[in-house]
Amino acid sequence: MIELRSDTFTLPTAAMRHAMVEAVVGDACYGEDPTVRELEETAAERVGKQAACLMPSGTMGNLAAVLAHVPRGSKVIAGAESDIYLYEAGGVSMCGGALLAPVPHLPDGRFVPDALAAEFPGDPDDPQFALPALLCVENTQNRCGGVALPLDYLREVRAFAAARGVGVHLDGARLFNAEVASGVPAADIAATADSVQFCLSKGLSAPIGSMVAGSAEFVTRVRRVRKLLGGTMRQAGVVAAAGLIALREMTGRLAEDHANARRLAEHLADIDGVDIDPGSVGTNIVLFRVLDERLTAAEFVAAAGRAGVALTEFGHGRIRAVTHRGVIAADIDRAADVLATVLALPR
Amino acid sequence: MIELRSDTFTLPTAAMRHAMVEAVVGDACYGEDPTVRELEETAAERVGKQAACLMPSGTMGNLAAVLAHVPRGSKVIAGAESDIYLYEAGGVSMCGGALLAPVPHLPDGRFVPDALAAEFPGDPDDPQFALPALLCVENTQNRCGGVALPLDYLREVRAFAAARGVGVHLDGARLFNAEVASGVPAADIAATADSVQFCLSKGLSAPIGSMVAGSAEFVTRVRRVRKLLGGTMRQAGVVAAAGLIALREMTGRLAEDHANARRLAEHLADIDGVDIDPGSVGTNIVLFRVLDERLTAAEFVAAAGRAGVALTEFGHGRIRAVTHRGVIAADIDRAADVLATVLALPR
Amino acid sequence: MIELRSDTFTLPTAAMRHAMVEAVVGDACYGEDPTVRELEETAAERVGKQAACLMPSGTMGNLAAVLAHVPRGSKVIAGAESDIYLYEAGGVSMCGGALLAPVPHLPDGRFVPDALAAEFPGDPDDPQFALPALLCVENTQNRCGGVALPLDYLREVRAFAAARGVGVHLDGARLFNAEVASGVPAADIAATADSVQFCLSKGLSAPIGSMVAGSAEFVTRVRRVRKLLGGTMRQAGVVAAAGLIALREMTGRLAEDHANARRLAEHLADIDGVDIDPGSVGTNIVLFRVLDERLTAAEFVAAAGRAGVALTEFGHGRIRAVTHRGVIAADIDRAADVLATVLALPR
Amino acid sequence: MIELRSDTFTLPTAAMRHAMVEAVVGDACYGEDPTVRELEETAAERVGKQAACLMPSGTMGNLAAVLAHVPRGSKVIAGAESDIYLYEAGGVSMCGGALLAPVPHLPDGRFVPDALAAEFPGDPDDPQFALPALLCVENTQNRCGGVALPLDYLREVRAFAAARGVGVHLDGARLFNAEVASGVPAADIAATADSVQFCLSKGLSAPIGSMVAGSAEFVTRVRRVRKLLGGTMRQAGVVAAAGLIALREMTGRLAEDHANARRLAEHLADIDGVDIDPGSVGTNIVLFRVLDERLTAAEFVAAAGRAGVALTEFGHGRIRAVTHRGVIAADIDRAADVLATVLALPR
Ligand SMILES: [Ca+2]
Ligand SMILES: [Ca+2]
Ligand SMILES: [Ca+2]
Ligand SMILES: [Ca+2]
Ligand SMILES: [Ca+2]
Ligand SMILES: [Ca+2]
Repeated sequence: MIELRSDTFTLPTAAMRHAMVEAVVGDACYGEDPTVRELEETAAERVGKQAACLMPSGTMGNLAAVLAHVPRGSKVIAGAESDIYLYEAGGVSMCGGALLAPVPHLPDGRFVPDALAAEFPGDPDDPQFALPALLCVENTQNRCGGVALPLDYLREVRAFAAARGVGVHLDGARLFNAEVASGVPAADIAATADSVQFCLSKGLSAPIGSMVAGSAEFVTRVRRVRKLLGGTMRQAGVVAAAGLIALREMTGRLAEDHANARRLAEHLADIDGVDIDPGSVGTNIVLFRVLDERLTAAEFVAAAGRAGVALTEFGHGRIRAVTHRGVIAADIDRAADVLATVLALPR
Repeated sequence: MIELRSDTFTLPTAAMRHAMVEAVVGDACYGEDPTVRELEETAAERVGKQAACLMPSGTMGNLAAVLAHVPRGSKVIAGAESDIYLYEAGGVSMCGGALLAPVPHLPDGRFVPDALAAEFPGDPDDPQFALPALLCVENTQNRCGGVALPLDYLREVRAFAAARGVGVHLDGARLFNAEVASGVPAADIAATADSVQFCLSKGLSAPIGSMVAGSAEFVTRVRRVRKLLGGTMRQAGVVAAAGLIALREMTGRLAEDHANARRLAEHLADIDGVDIDPGSVGTNIVLFRVLDERLTAAEFVAAAGRAGVALTEFGHGRIRAVTHRGVIAADIDRAADVLATVLALPR
Repeated sequence: MIELRSDTFTLPTAAMRHAMVEAVVGDACYGEDPTVRELEETAAERVGKQAACLMPSGTMGNLAAVLAHVPRGSKVIAGAESDIYLYEAGGVSMCGGALLAPVPHLPDGRFVPDALAAEFPGDPDDPQFALPALLCVENTQNRCGGVALPLDYLREVRAFAAARGVGVHLDGARLFNAEVASGVPAADIAATADSVQFCLSKGLSAPIGSMVAGSAEFVTRVRRVRKLLGGTMRQAGVVAAAGLIALREMTGRLAEDHANARRLAEHLADIDGVDIDPGSVGTNIVLFRVLDERLTAAEFVAAAGRAGVALTEFGHGRIRAVTHRGVIAADIDRAADVLATVLALPR
Repeated sequence: MIELRSDTFTLPTAAMRHAMVEAVVGDACYGEDPTVRELEETAAERVGKQAACLMPSGTMGNLAAVLAHVPRGSKVIAGAESDIYLYEAGGVSMCGGALLAPVPHLPDGRFVPDALAAEFPGDPDDPQFALPALLCVENTQNRCGGVALPLDYLREVRAFAAARGVGVHLDGARLFNAEVASGVPAADIAATADSVQFCLSKGLSAPIGSMVAGSAEFVTRVRRVRKLLGGTMRQAGVVAAAGLIALREMTGRLAEDHANARRLAEHLADIDGVDIDPGSVGTNIVLFRVLDERLTAAEFVAAAGRAGVALTEFGHGRIRAVTHRGVIAADIDRAADVLATVLALPR
């Protein structure tokens, strides 16, 4: 099977496995795991924040960060196509008592301009409105094709938020894909937000873990929420040891994933019956449609799976393929052949 | 001042005041207020449900109804232009731990067709999705111009929801405006929902109170939520006595408000620089724009207020005027004159 | 029936009914009801706070006050025998996401001394502890026999809380009973708390309504919570008009209720098989036990009800009788006779 | 340093480290990690339940289990000395909107008998009461000295709960200590509850992880909550591999910890100025007091730490020592000597 469902399928490297064996660990609930501390300090420095904290998942990273930002009863603005709104089970509302307000995107991943401003009530003293307290930005933006948002745009959003007195949280699950694709250092991207979450377990290939970074005072609040949610893990150094390798050694290799994604997109563009713009593929995510009317997206995904290529049905009639360390250029070529064959089958 | 900001400004009638003096009351927290019981039974019968329960406001009516329907962590689908999503402070998320999912409308008040279906995850077993548990419909739909939704459409929405195993709650704050405008009895409208909330305090002119109606078992759950929220009022019979008059004697008179709204719309259509389609005014709400580029909607509303006509700025560049028992045809004519004058002022 | 279940059964006076007819009202959701404003100003002044706000019930008064004080995830300390912990359906946890920590009482209504301090974690930086954010005091303390807590004790509790950086909320549902019983002005009692809730609808005989008072900034936050909960009522002046009379004219008469309670207690002390200390009855609440082993408290309450005296079973084997404006001295004498007869029945 | 603060300080064994290297892993968020599945099946079978699910911590295990059991607004009964009430930051209230009701214990770890029944309202239809929905039992009971509750008592509690229609959740963080101490198989203990949580990371020495077990339908709901909280970890097989060894090979060795705890207790009983009953030490937890009035518990703990023995101040004037795999009999003897010396210091 050529696994293109997600980059979360990456397996830990041999070096990571080895590091897990060697890691010096302690009880991280008491703050006494040196490897966790090393990872947290390394992560903070890497993204240019005062402090960082290890999480068992990106979902908890986002949840704990949002809860550390906003009071109960406030409004959290997020992209209508964002993970936080769509794929994190409404945790912000359930655990945080906050309203999630989804804002539509332009195809290039930016917010529809007036839509952001419309979320701010004309009269903040009118108690019928939940008051906006946070703006969440996702970069790269998964459902807009893994696009890396331009630094200028991120700065503009930050200035918009700051002018209205609300913070910005960056869901940077694939922050280093953005770094590699845009050539802008992760710390400069993260500087456009008050807090950032990024995953060690996607293209970076750690088995477990995400980081939340921000000011020291903010991260202290995040740790409190993490404990309550049950995300503080005991001898977490075994996980952190792999995470350190992910962070130190694996960010550069994301360029390969991007090249493979572009390679796949170009192959797909050559197949009759596939709708794709290869120019829109900037990172490791490839979105396309099949134009064969006899076949829904879900049916195509199922047929591709039977033929040995695992894809994801992705809403709005789209199909997603994600490249990662477990897939090499030869796999990409073979996958394209398989997909062409599937489409050419008589129906 | 000609008060056109909202029909909530209606004052109680002399008969209501008198009824408040005469009402036989008891401790309604113990279920011992006979006037409250009479109102609840009358309301249930009027809207064709098994039971009903008195609320201090429509906001609580909607909140308690939604919480009685859905478990924590579920998704509540509501119109992007609905009161429940926009004007009720996110109470469903804060008190209920539920995600509110706003769905866009067509200009005629219906939901964008595919948008409803898109809220239901392809794989309900996938835990990354909050599961839809309720669909909220607003009728008349305030921010779509007070439109009364067609009965056929309401039935279609109900069938859609039923096919997916979720209930329907009808925010019928202005349910009787819908009844009068459409000629469909309120009970037939309410039959397209599992529960309904309607206000006694808007066009019906009671000073305080809304009703939630549904099955007996549902209303029992609503009463439990109401108590927790603090909405169970002691000798509430004084309020219920006015409510009984509102419900029994005031629904028919809404036709006057509708005629006045149409009258106002026609006057406005005659004014240069006003953008309005009088044909779109079906109940007591009039939405229009001023085309003068030197003047924002908010500035026009302020100028009108200084000139003696109270209006509301209503988002998307629109201005709202609402007719009600406190405004007669002569007021409407005068208001139109004032607004024409305001627009004609040199700037 | 001699109604001794609660002072919530009081009916509005003729003057209140009259005031409801005459009240000048407006839309209180817009802050435009002059009678509501008058009540709110009068109440604030009466209890010595900057501002006050009308609520549909004492339950909402407490809930909104607590939520305005504490963030999500914090600990709210309240008496193990308090209304907030026992009788308000856990609203603080459901709507506020806060932990309620019940602290045991001494028989005289004070907290068990060390129990208060034990609620504060030794290490507030340890995230396994919910952090205390508010201390709730109830005065008079219903389930400790309606005792009015001494001013010195209230000051001591306030100093304790202040030293630990947490606020104090006073559930003064029967604040004026405390004023009358202790001779300490309500404002002096309320000065020992950051916020206070008191009911207009118990001994003061208004049909509906409670007030929350505190600093202007605090009351602004309370108003926001009240809107979300659905407690902001439209032409609430009809209710406020009665509340003004309650507040201005009815507090002094609570002395009669206290005298009647003492009268009942003394009668009961003369009955064989009743366990009561008349000296413990300081306000309008009488707690006693029946010693007849053939009869549970619930069975005695049922038998008394059949014989024409309505009482409440009150936990810990106790029975409660509450005096109020609807019960005069002759009723008390008759009630005592009835209870003696019930106890003397052969079984 | 002789580490007696907690058994959470255990480090993974060499075999565990090795297993982490060898583990076959996959994306557990897609249910595709075979090692996680093996652990979950093994754990379910070991405790006699249909299904089980891996958690990043015992805190999340309890939180997700409780939320899967109870609706918003209900009452969760737990021991006043339980971890769920005291040490888990009120997560049940914050994330679940449920009221936690703490019930006092007898010194032997059982609940004060009448206190349990008192949590059930006489009239469940009265909406002023939060309705009990779950009873949480902790076994072994940490703050009652690590006592293993008798099987008969657990069955009695289960019967009590069942008779009132509420479920039982067993916080078995140290379930296998209870098994070893009581000689009752863990599955028989767990059979007295609807769900059970146990930790792999305490005496069993896994670096990370707890399990929640129950019916298949229940565990499906737990998985949903786990995802929302952010506890579903990607290639969690690296953690599960260690957990399998913990579960299969480490439960028997807890007898050593118990023997060492008893050994410590007997040493302490020989020291003048230590208050301890060695007969009360049944598992791996030792509670004692120092009688020297010149020294608080906290001061003694600090002095012991400086002298090389790490202990915990434990409330009610008590000090806790916990034995585990990282401490052998010789350490215990040495620790006792150190503590005797500390107490004998001139002050
Ligand atoms: Ca991975
Ligand atoms: Ca995510
Ligand atoms: Ca009105
Ligand atoms: Ca509304
Ligand atoms: Ca009353
Ligand atoms: Ca460990």
